Amino acid sequence: MKVFVVIGHQHPGSFCHAIAEAAVEQLRTAGHDVVFHDLYQEGFDPILPHEEIDKQAELDPAVQRHVDEVAAADGYVVVHPNWWGQPPAILKGWLDRVFRQGSVYEFGPDGVVGLLKGRSALVLTTSNTPREAELELFGDPLENLWKACVFNFCGVEDFHRRNFESIILSTPEQRKAWLEEVRQLVRSRFPAADR
Amino acid sequence: MKVFVVIGHQHPGSFCHAIAEAAVEQLRTAGHDVVFHDLYQEGFDPILPHEEIDKQAELDPAVQRHVDEVAAADGYVVVHPNWWGQPPAILKGWLDRVFRQGSVYEFGPDGVVGLLKGRSALVLTTSNTPREAELELFGDPLENLWKACVFNFCGVEDFHRRNFESIILSTPEQRKAWLEEVRQLVRSRFPAADR
Repeated sequence: MKVFVVIGHQHPGSFCHAIAEAAVEQLRTAGHDVVFHDLYQEGFDPILPHEEIDKQAELDPAVQRHVDEVAAADGYVVVHPNWWGQPPAILKGWLDRVFRQGSVYEFGPDGVVGLLKGRSALVLTTSNTPREAELELFGDPLENLWKACVFNFCGVEDFHRRNFESIILSTPEQRKAWLEEVRQLVRSRFPAADR
Repeated sequence: MKVFVVIGHQHPGSFCHAIAEAAVEQLRTAGHDVVFHDLYQEGFDPILPHEEIDKQAELDPAVQRHVDEVAAADGYVVVHPNWWGQPPAILKGWLDRVFRQGSVYEFGPDGVVGLLKGRSALVLTTSNTPREAELELFGDPLENLWKACVFNFCGVEDFHRRNFESIILSTPEQRKAWLEEVRQLVRSRFPAADR
């Protein structure tokens, strides 16, 4: 399988990066073809310009590459911290520019048609807010944003998300166990081809 | 009153811009001191760099100006389209960089302390999704994001949001009535000083 892995986090030494690395390693061990994008590292420009709104617009080559790779992938792993109940701006802009009409969704006579049908998505997020507060005060917005507003909208039914918290209070043992959980989640979503 | 108005939309001819202009005009007519930021026009950089995470970090002067103006304002008007149930990346990054710990919220012994207590916030959004679908399929995420995750978190209790839809199907008469509604919403939130 081709799996597209994307991370939006400002620091290479972050636990998000450890998650992304564990995911990529597990995918490669299972024999998958991995495309990995660290948006901060590659200096991805998240600002959708007016000229790119048109469906037929000629895209910036870096954006076109993401568009082609997303369309060609069988699955997605998205990694980021929770900032204001949303992804960091760089990852939000990746959605704005890369998830284009005609590529990941289309409007048909009966409404929206998701063009990513049959794909799998795994979203791995981190936060410092205790789970109960996230659910009670904020309603866990990342679950709804990624599941309903993005992936289901694009036709992805096999969606799974796991949030790891609290990063700031976690012990090395806990983080080690979480990375093992990441490997298991990736393995169950994207099993080895020959199994 | 000092009112901070911010818009994140890629096209100066947009209905969002008409909304922002109506809001600014109404605020000035009522005698308020308006700070207006069109993030696309000013080329706001939405990418929070690692060096800015630290509470004591020295900020980019453009960001510092936003931080100071937000702290000094008595109220906020935020205008943007609904992109994936979230604001455009440029406005998301404005939150990431400008809504800083120590400026709009702080951690106290009993948890988060909102530092924008007593302020008012009006969020005006646009979309093409029919209201029923937005509520049923997506749960109207912008309401929760701006109300609970951002403004209530920062201590703002006087929050109001209005979404205008569907922009793409609207008539000139409808848009004219909507702009009149914007003026009324702004007037009721930010009445003239001498009334």
